[in-house]
Amino acid sequence: MRYEHLSSPAIAALDRDATILIVSLGAVEQHGPHLPVGTDSMIVTALCEAAARQRGDTVVLPPPWYGVSPHHMRFPGTVSIGVDTMRALVGDIVDSAVTHGFRRILLVNGHGGNGPTLDVLATTLGHRHHPRVRIAGLTYFQLAAAEIDAIRESAPGGAGHAGEVETSLMLHLAPDLVGMEDAVAVYPDAGSPYLTTDLTGSSPIRTFTDFSDLSSSGVFGDPSLADAGKGERLFTAIVGSLDRFLDDFAGWPLT
Amino acid sequence: MRYEHLSSPAIAALDRDATILIVSLGAVEQHGPHLPVGTDSMIVTALCEAAARQRGDTVVLPPPWYGVSPHHMRFPGTVSIGVDTMRALVGDIVDSAVTHGFRRILLVNGHGGNGPTLDVLATTLGHRHHPRVRIAGLTYFQLAAAEIDAIRESAPGGAGHAGEVETSLMLHLAPDLVGMEDAVAVYPDAGSPYLTTDLTGSSPIRTFTDFSDLSSSGVFGDPSLADAGKGERLFTAIVGSLDRFLDDFAGWPLT
Amino acid sequence: MRYEHLSSPAIAALDRDATILIVSLGAVEQHGPHLPVGTDSMIVTALCEAAARQRGDTVVLPPPWYGVSPHHMRFPGTVSIGVDTMRALVGDIVDSAVTHGFRRILLVNGHGGNGPTLDVLATTLGHRHHPRVRIAGLTYFQLAAAEIDAIRESAPGGAGHAGEVETSLMLHLAPDLVGMEDAVAVYPDAGSPYLTTDLTGSSPIRTFTDFSDLSSSGVFGDPSLADAGKGERLFTAIVGSLDRFLDDFAGWPLT
Amino acid sequence: MRYEHLSSPAIAALDRDATILIVSLGAVEQHGPHLPVGTDSMIVTALCEAAARQRGDTVVLPPPWYGVSPHHMRFPGTVSIGVDTMRALVGDIVDSAVTHGFRRILLVNGHGGNGPTLDVLATTLGHRHHPRVRIAGLTYFQLAAAEIDAIRESAPGGAGHAGEVETSLMLHLAPDLVGMEDAVAVYPDAGSPYLTTDLTGSSPIRTFTDFSDLSSSGVFGDPSLADAGKGERLFTAIVGSLDRFLDDFAGWPLT
Amino acid sequence: MRYEHLSSPAIAALDRDATILIVSLGAVEQHGPHLPVGTDSMIVTALCEAAARQRGDTVVLPPPWYGVSPHHMRFPGTVSIGVDTMRALVGDIVDSAVTHGFRRILLVNGHGGNGPTLDVLATTLGHRHHPRVRIAGLTYFQLAAAEIDAIRESAPGGAGHAGEVETSLMLHLAPDLVGMEDAVAVYPDAGSPYLTTDLTGSSPIRTFTDFSDLSSSGVFGDPSLADAGKGERLFTAIVGSLDRFLDDFAGWPLT
Amino acid sequence: MRYEHLSSPAIAALDRDATILIVSLGAVEQHGPHLPVGTDSMIVTALCEAAARQRGDTVVLPPPWYGVSPHHMRFPGTVSIGVDTMRALVGDIVDSAVTHGFRRILLVNGHGGNGPTLDVLATTLGHRHHPRVRIAGLTYFQLAAAEIDAIRESAPGGAGHAGEVETSLMLHLAPDLVGMEDAVAVYPDAGSPYLTTDLTGSSPIRTFTDFSDLSSSGVFGDPSLADAGKGERLFTAIVGSLDRFLDDFAGWPLT
Repeated sequence: MRYEHLSSPAIAALDRDATILIVSLGAVEQHGPHLPVGTDSMIVTALCEAAARQRGDTVVLPPPWYGVSPHHMRFPGTVSIGVDTMRALVGDIVDSAVTHGFRRILLVNGHGGNGPTLDVLATTLGHRHHPRVRIAGLTYFQLAAAEIDAIRESAPGGAGHAGEVETSLMLHLAPDLVGMEDAVAVYPDAGSPYLTTDLTGSSPIRTFTDFSDLSSSGVFGDPSLADAGKGERLFTAIVGSLDRFLDDFAGWPLT
Repeated sequence: MRYEHLSSPAIAALDRDATILIVSLGAVEQHGPHLPVGTDSMIVTALCEAAARQRGDTVVLPPPWYGVSPHHMRFPGTVSIGVDTMRALVGDIVDSAVTHGFRRILLVNGHGGNGPTLDVLATTLGHRHHPRVRIAGLTYFQLAAAEIDAIRESAPGGAGHAGEVETSLMLHLAPDLVGMEDAVAVYPDAGSPYLTTDLTGSSPIRTFTDFSDLSSSGVFGDPSLADAGKGERLFTAIVGSLDRFLDDFAGWPLT
Repeated sequence: MRYEHLSSPAIAALDRDATILIVSLGAVEQHGPHLPVGTDSMIVTALCEAAARQRGDTVVLPPPWYGVSPHHMRFPGTVSIGVDTMRALVGDIVDSAVTHGFRRILLVNGHGGNGPTLDVLATTLGHRHHPRVRIAGLTYFQLAAAEIDAIRESAPGGAGHAGEVETSLMLHLAPDLVGMEDAVAVYPDAGSPYLTTDLTGSSPIRTFTDFSDLSSSGVFGDPSLADAGKGERLFTAIVGSLDRFLDDFAGWPLT
Repeated sequence: MRYEHLSSPAIAALDRDATILIVSLGAVEQHGPHLPVGTDSMIVTALCEAAARQRGDTVVLPPPWYGVSPHHMRFPGTVSIGVDTMRALVGDIVDSAVTHGFRRILLVNGHGGNGPTLDVLATTLGHRHHPRVRIAGLTYFQLAAAEIDAIRESAPGGAGHAGEVETSLMLHLAPDLVGMEDAVAVYPDAGSPYLTTDLTGSSPIRTFTDFSDLSSSGVFGDPSLADAGKGERLFTAIVGSLDRFLDDFAGWPLT
Repeated sequence: MRYEHLSSPAIAALDRDATILIVSLGAVEQHGPHLPVGTDSMIVTALCEAAARQRGDTVVLPPPWYGVSPHHMRFPGTVSIGVDTMRALVGDIVDSAVTHGFRRILLVNGHGGNGPTLDVLATTLGHRHHPRVRIAGLTYFQLAAAEIDAIRESAPGGAGHAGEVETSLMLHLAPDLVGMEDAVAVYPDAGSPYLTTDLTGSSPIRTFTDFSDLSSSGVFGDPSLADAGKGERLFTAIVGSLDRFLDDFAGWPLT
Repeated sequence: MRYEHLSSPAIAALDRDATILIVSLGAVEQHGPHLPVGTDSMIVTALCEAAARQRGDTVVLPPPWYGVSPHHMRFPGTVSIGVDTMRALVGDIVDSAVTHGFRRILLVNGHGGNGPTLDVLATTLGHRHHPRVRIAGLTYFQLAAAEIDAIRESAPGGAGHAGEVETSLMLHLAPDLVGMEDAVAVYPDAGSPYLTTDLTGSSPIRTFTDFSDLSSSGVFGDPSLADAGKGERLFTAIVGSLDRFLDDFAGWPLT
């Protein structure tokens, strides 16, 4: 169910205590030679819409598209917005929704570079609208890390930026936009055992990594392992994971 | 040609002196009982993509969707972002494009409430990137006012917010999202001969008008005069008007 | 009636529902070799004070003097303040007036470069103080375009920056500050039929124009056509136009 | 010599190493029942212009008029701008002057409430343009405290806001705007020996004082002691004091 | 080695390529009835100084003390600074250090509420100073989660805010400031299996939790399990963990 | 009595009408070759704590440590925060204290470069929390100028930055951190009789002075005249002076 397709009276008719509004956060940035720059936003929006379609209580707002991508700016085509731009934009969207009485708002992120900003947004907006409104944020490949790792075939490092997982998902969602002939594995050296280059990896260390320092093609991982069937299985698994969290979120008490 | 569908190397391969990048600006706001809240953004993005399709030198960036709509916030469903949020967002997008060497950037607006911000953006971004980059801004119903007035049937006031013109365009673009049974004319009284409520009207007076003060349905004008054929003629005429300006813009000298 | 000449109790004694407060917006910027840099502010303030003098309900605040003039900064002597500086300044002035109960506030602009900022101010301040206070903005040469065109003698392009109209007005207001021996016509080429260089022209296209790119003297138009008598006729006509709008504005309903 | 009266070429012809540009800072705020709200700006601008007239090297910029006056906002008619608004405004003016090559810039203040902001401006702008440009700031009644105290007749407390000194100066400069029949002495109790209510007093303690807490008329001191002759003597003495500093400032070395 | 104890020449004499500067981030906030409000800053600063003492290449800057603690503001005594205040403060400190040539800067955090801000700081400052300077951030109880879990005795939930771990550390560092007679266990219900209340727990979900909603004493966990010996073992283990990361960080290549 | 050592319930138990909270403001900046960079913060914090210890009604918050020191940035080791950073930081601290009901808050400054910011803070925070809360600010060497001048032996200019007074105070407080063998007098030439280089001097002129322009060692004054006994006498005198003001401040009426 897409918010932009509803009329004002139709939105007014929603149960605004129960309805979960989703804002998807992605990016417009280089994804190697084989994926389009819109990859992150296309994937995360598709995931949110699929989850909303199989539920009756969830509506997805139009995607803001752009993300925080300074670490990709050395590659042509990347569009990066600042941390404060994203905070202002998502803040204004959420504030508008709260003005109209919505009380459950979820930010679903699909781009690693948005992580710090997502975290600030979830906590500061949560504080601003506490206790009337519940606001949560998540990054799909962290939420569904176990499900993703159960399907992927590459070792750690193979499912990084534009790697096995993202390429599979795009082969499932928009195969015409994928150039598998250009999909070549790159296993970058992050330079420290404390750092990771994999979507499902985690590290206690926060730092800035310019992707052009580690990979001349912009790829982290092995996109050659991608296929559409794997993409479909990943998609289904991640949507399932998201749906389970939405079940939980739908029950968070309101005051 | 949609920017988000291109890979980084494909963007690098564009002639960045000649290519015109378009950022479309719309809104997510009430459009009466018969049109979806995404109307402005859907129309303006469709116009830009149509103009780009019939040219070889123009690429359309993903639409930021949200606009400056405080005057509609009393109607459920409106999402309004601040003047400074829009400035930051469009500024970051344009700056990124300039970083990658693009030199002709056009902001195409489809929402009256964005007008002041569009004007500030065109002049301040133009100044920031002068003299290397040419940046222009326009609002489609001002650019094509004569063409629109040649097709519309209503008297002045009939083609305002969610009126004859926007409803016709939506019947052409997304008829499933239009509820003509709810399309009822409202001719609001702006309260002064110095003010206008029509898309193609103009006034030397700037002021704030809360739409709920003038129309309880949110409609300004007569949507009952809308039909899909008229929408197609309007669409073609506006795209033609935009295309003529793009011809001119493509020739603005670079230093 | 000048605000700065009144005592606090005298201001308290005004009918603050009916009284119209005017803030004049001008510029301190190059006006060619024959006009002083204070031209815009001197003209607009004189117009406002003349209109106020012939009415009983209007008070003019002290002029902030400085405007948004980045497009003139390559000429010595220009003082340019930022869009946000002007917003803050006029915003604070208007907020103070609202605090004291004034309910009709008009921004009268006399400098093209202030246009986008004026538009943002009129709408955002209007929104901030809606519905208690009516706030409007106008640029005198747009309000009185027809009256001006009826008096001027030059073809379009002749009455631009420091051209026939502004020079005539200054010959009427402050002839000692005008050096007619240096008043030489320049008809700049704006480079596109979509653009205009005349005070009373209008265009649907917004862009940044650096005046030094088009005119080495800083003049747009033909100041040699100026004379004091024409200046007086222009002045009277513009004040009349302003007065007619003030009559209308005085009647805008308050809630 | 007034900056706004000069043409762009005339400004270009100034010796910009030697010329001292003055920005005067005042206020538009209540000055009791007997003085106009423009008092501070009128006095300080007159002082600066008089000092400039008797020198050949000094030009006075148009006065920004408005000051930081939250402590007077409970009295009708006060217009207060924020600390950051004044910083932005004066910063933009100074930056413009520096762009055009001016290297000696003096901020002359005539309103106590501007003191903290003046201090921030002098140091931050001085740092921004160090070492090319010398920027200084002063408040006239601190610079000339000894000269003022030699002329005034009241005891400490008598020459506060709208008291003996300001009223005398206004009787000298604009007697028509002074209502001596309403000039009544008020000796407010500042509540602590660490605080002062006199223009020439000084205290090591910084705090906020709302003037309406201490004086119902807005007066601090004894305006009934004012007369025009005393005003002329004060004016001459202060201008002399300012002129002596300008002599010194003109010799500050440039790098 | 404490930065504030060094003279300017002594700092100039440091090997600024090799020296690691540490900024510790803590909080001044309620820590239940048995711990002082300075707990977080005291612990994290002590950890950093201990790590620096046992190395020759590390200097600890004076602690900024205050953290982002809106979730504790309902408890008396909490001092909370905004996300942007902390960003400005740490940003200015790091920028100053970079100006003086330091190239390895580590932010060590000891307060969960600072996490999002730490993440933004590490990435934005890292980007600002890339590629000359390496900037990293960590939270000690995430870095040393395994070491902490090996020593603690409580089940998950027992080592939350002011629980077993923090209380033990304070008994080791400043026993006089601990009131064990008031140390009572609270096992709050976070309301969702997706959330955690333990220092070493992790969750893919970001949200705002007001601590007063979950615990009337402000305690999360079981401080009654704390003792000084355990505190010493925890302290040694965490310092060891930090030291191992510093060994790695010292080897991150410089360009 | 140190705030960070108190528990939340202990703070709640304070008489928040009567208790004076002190925020000390210092700097981390070069203090010549013989004093540590933490000098200003160490001195001012020690003074505040000593005053608080001999009273029953005063609590000292943890020191923010860093100050506004752009004029020292050319000397290695200086850490300078911006005027707005300090405003945000102290503003957040004071706002938190006010939230918890404290009504007497004193900012005690020990660094000349913080002066303008202190002044802005005292007035703007005072205004923000008027009339419920009394907020004052002072700089110790201005408050106690007479007491200091009675003890010092140097002529004016001898007790400037890192000179006789500061060095004596540090010999009293932290002799191990002072290198008297490097304590060499420097009497800088401020270049104008209107300027001063002494802690207890005063001037009506505000300007920016880069300390490296006047002293290659960073010293202003004669530290060789310092000794620990003089430091103790100075310390006692300044604490006495502060205590007398606290007596007065404790009696400022609350509304």
